Order: sequence, then C-alpha cells, then structure tokens
Amino acid sequence: MTVIYQRVALIGLGLIASSMAHAMRAGGLAGEIVGHAKSAETRATALEIGLCDRVYASAAEAVEGADLVVLAVPVGAMAAIAAEISPHLAEGATVTDVGSVKQAVIAAVQPHIPAGVQFIPGHPMAGTEFSGPRSGFGTLFVNRWWLLTPLPDTDPAALERLRSLLIAMGAKVNEMDPAHHDQVLAVVSHTPHLIAYTMVGVADHLAQVSNSEVIEYSASGFRDFTRIAASDPTMWRDVFLTNKDAVLDILGRFAEELFVLQRAIRMGDGEHLFDYFTRTRAIRRGIIEAGQDTSAPDFGRVAPPKAGV
Amino acid sequence: MTVIYQRVALIGLGLIASSMAHAMRAGGLAGEIVGHAKSAETRATALEIGLCDRVYASAAEAVEGADLVVLAVPVGAMAAIAAEISPHLAEGATVTDVGSVKQAVIAAVQPHIPAGVQFIPGHPMAGTEFSGPRSGFGTLFVNRWWLLTPLPDTDPAALERLRSLLIAMGAKVNEMDPAHHDQVLAVVSHTPHLIAYTMVGVADHLAQVSNSEVIEYSASGFRDFTRIAASDPTMWRDVFLTNKDAVLDILGRFAEELFVLQRAIRMGDGEHLFDYFTRTRAIRRGIIEAGQDTSAPDFGRVAPPKAGV
Repeated sequence: MTVIYQRVALIGLGLIASSMAHAMRAGGLAGEIVGHAKSAETRATALEIGLCDRVYASAAEAVEGADLVVLAVPVGAMAAIAAEISPHLAEGATVTDVGSVKQAVIAAVQPHIPAGVQFIPGHPMAGTEFSGPRSGFGTLFVNRWWLLTPLPDTDPAALERLRSLLIAMGAKVNEMDPAHHDQVLAVVSHTPHLIAYTMVGVADHLAQVSNSEVIEYSASGFRDFTRIAASDPTMWRDVFLTNKDAVLDILGRFAEELFVLQRAIRMGDGEHLFDYFTRTRAIRRGIIEAGQDTSAPDFGRVAPPKAGV
Repeated sequence: MTVIYQRVALIGLGLIASSMAHAMRAGGLAGEIVGHAKSAETRATALEIGLCDRVYASAAEAVEGADLVVLAVPVGAMAAIAAEISPHLAEGATVTDVGSVKQAVIAAVQPHIPAGVQFIPGHPMAGTEFSGPRSGFGTLFVNRWWLLTPLPDTDPAALERLRSLLIAMGAKVNEMDPAHHDQVLAVVSHTPHLIAYTMVGVADHLAQVSNSEVIEYSASGFRDFTRIAASDPTMWRDVFLTNKDAVLDILGRFAEELFVLQRAIRMGDGEHLFDYFTRTRAIRRGIIEAGQDTSAPDFGRVAPPKAGV
C-alpha cells in the first residue's frame, strides 16, 4: 500500500479508467482520484460507485494539481482534450494515455505538452466487450501487457514511476517503438476486429438465412465473432481512422490469403487446406504456453469438463 | 435412467463420440456401448477410460447387433464407412451421423442403407477446439442444438426414439431441411472458421512482426481467432470440400463487405464505420438473450469481475 501519485486525474471514465480506479484503490496507489467525463450521468455514476473522490465537468479543472493525468478517451478525442488541459497541467506532472494507437496519439497530444510536463504514451492490452463507468473491475490488468512507447526525451525517473504504478495494478510492462506498436496491434487486434465486424454484418443482411436462425445457431465460430463485434463503436472507428496504413496493409495481406484458400476450396484442393489448418493449430499452442489464454476447452465457457461422468 | 437403445455402436471415437459415451453412461441411456476407431491407440484409450464396453478394429464388426449406429468420423470418411457396414446392419436399426455438413453426408451414406434400416442424419452443434477420445465430457451437449435433417421416408417412431436419446443427453433438438442446414452452417460456423484460419495464417508469415510478438500480444481479438483456428484440420478440410457452394457464396459476400469497410477506412469515412459497428453490437445482444452465450465479460475468461474493489 504505497501511494505512487498524490492525485490522479482520469480524463474519460469508461472501462479502462474505471478499472484503473478500482485497481488503484485496492492497492492504495493514489492519494486521491479525480475524474472528468463529458456526460453528467457518467460523472454521477463515478461518484455513486466511488470511482472518483471528485468529478469535474471540465477536463481543464480536473487536471489542476494532478501529478498523473490519464487520457482515457477515444483516440479521435485526444487532440481537443490535450489542447484544453495544456495550460492547466501542473509543473512536474506526467500525462499518459490508454489509446490503442500510438503514433496518432503522439501527433495529437505531444504538441500541447508544456515544458516541465512529461508525456508517456501507453496502451493497456486489456478489455472486455463492455464499456462505461460500471464496466470496470480492479483485476482487468492482472497479467496483461501494458505497452509504453516513451518519446526520445522522456525522463527516466518519470517513466520508472509510471511503470511502478502499472506493475502495482498487476500489469506486465514493456516498451516499444510507436510505429512498431501500431504494426503489431494491426495484426493482433485491429484487423481481427474489422474482420469480426464484417462477418457479423454479412450475417445480418443475408436473405436466405434469417437473423433469428443466425442467433439461435450461433454456437462455434460465429458466436466468438459477435463478442468481438460488440466492442465500443466510437473507440473502434477511431482506431481504424488513425491506424489506417497498418490496417490497410494487413487487410491487403488477409484478402490475398483468403483468396488462396477460397481457390483451394473451389478447386477441391484438400491437401492445401489440411496443411494450412495444421500450421495454424501450432500457433494456438504457442499462445497457451505464453500464458496469454486459458487452455480450458471453449475458454472454459461450457459446463465443467469431465463433470458428466 | 431409461435405456433407450440396447446397443449403441460408435463409429469413430473423437470428441463427439466420447462425449456421447459419457452422457449415455451418466444417464443410463444405452444397454451397452461398443466402438470402432481406426487407430489401435484410440481403441485402447476407449477401453481404458471406459468409453466402450467393447471395441472392434473393423466398423463392420462393431455395428453387428446394434440398434443405434452413430457415424462420428470426418465427413470425407462417411462413404467408405457406410459401404463397409452396410451388409452388417441389423434389421430395424437406426443409423445417424454427427457430420457438420448434411447434403454431402446424405449423398455418401443413404445409397448404402439397406431396406429395414433407418438413416436419420444429425448434427450436434457443440464442440471444443480439442479432439480425440480423451477430449469428451458428458455435459458437452447440454443446452446445445442437435439438428436433425430427416429424409422424406423417415419412420416417425425411429425419429422419435433418436430424438428422446438426444434430449436425454441434454440437447435441444430441431429439424431442418438438409440444404437449408448447410446454408445456415456456412454462415454461423464454416465461413467464420475459414476466416479465423486465414487471419492466423497471415500473422504467421508476416516479416515485420515476429511470431513471438504475435503470441505475446495476442490479447483481445486475435486470441479468439486462434482458438477457432486450433480445431481439427481433417474435420475442417472435409467441411469446406463438402459444403463448397454455400461456403463460396458466403465468402463472396464477405469479401464484398470487407472491401466496402476497407474503402471506408481508406477514405476516412468515420460515419460509415461507426454506423456499421453500432449495428453489429445489437446482434451480440440477441445471442445473449437467446441463451447461446454467456454475458460475462470476455466469456468470463478474465479474473472475476468486480473482484478487485
């Protein structure tokens, strides 16, 4: 129970910020937690469930006197928020963000950071398909990566202090170049999300298969896509608009690859399909061995294995 | 504990057959359970863990005297098995299968069914990413759909008896036209699987992002794809080869749809993306309301929600 920052200002009070609030309170990591959200209802909720000690209708007021400011708004909203808070940031404060894209956030925020304030871009690789201030929980970051993409002139002491907060919330921290971050994320997160959205959209407007059938028989496969495709629309719109080049690159590769498999199906090339499916199976094993997912069948989602005997 | 069939012959002893064995034993639904698998190791395992009372190296021997024969082999192996067992089927027996494709299985099996034997095609919509005789568990079918696609001359009494077995194992049973089944499955299962295989394959041979990075940072999105893409390669090869027309149709629609979203990204059309992502979110709600998936965040896979406060 060591206080790492005296006053943390959470700008935006959605899934990530509310989970941080729970985690910081559980660990006694922040002297006080203040917050800002655009919506009066969100601010009221944040007080009601104890996320924040105080809430403010303006981001500028919220950051006054804070030694850590967390920008937890959609990527597209970062520039305006940074401009608004800029004159109000305390000398010696650290500003971080939790956006899923890093180059665009740096371009939007860094020009507004005054001398004497550190901006250390970050990205917690954790989340669920829910959003809003009630969706947070204090263990969201446990054993998950929190990537930091420090800038060339980042102060090592400020970086170390932020890192210690993230680790105290349970996260594993790694540093990465911003451009490389955006490429990696395009592969492991952004493009898979777009594909899931697309598949769910296709199912939604098929004439020969009714929507109720799609919903009833969604086991195995489609069901998992719908969970991904239920994620926050604003957040994901901004991700695709701001990590455009990397996503378009991976989408192009995906389309090529899909056409090769489509051709194998059309030509009846079973050997090609079998070999391909065998290779992809090995990757899953790697992920389980790396501790990135449960090895329980079907994510442990079904009734307990072996219970039927 | 009502015995519904005196002797059930399981042809193939993978995930589905072994789960049926557990479920039938738990419910006392079969007088005895015999089995056949090509592999001597699988047969030994089936005896060792009590799936079968007896195992046979030949399918023909296994079906002798059985009043229910379950074809639980990959779709591509159905024709040869049906030809082999045909002269050995008992008068009055019912043959069913558990293949994920129905028109191709009917074409492969029905010509080999002798007079006095009923063939009732079936498809349990349940599974995990694991396979083999040790992967089964008795609750796999609980609250899952088991679709039957009876033929025009199916005996109602035989159908009712099979249905009562499936219900006793916990399944929900529905009947469907075989062609319509194959269309619905192309949407909710087959095409999503191909897409997941493709995305995992793309990640596997990217040069600028290393495989170890893909594995380490696979949270959110990609991780779910890898689970799907870890499914049995033989089974899935056969699905795509035998439900070719329906899968190619849906793949064509998917590619069109993906290109429209890709264009929206390229043109910076945020409104299009936001509207699309908002619509797909509603489908997820429908699936949860239909009881087809858990509403727990991230499938309940993360540490318990709210536990951190």
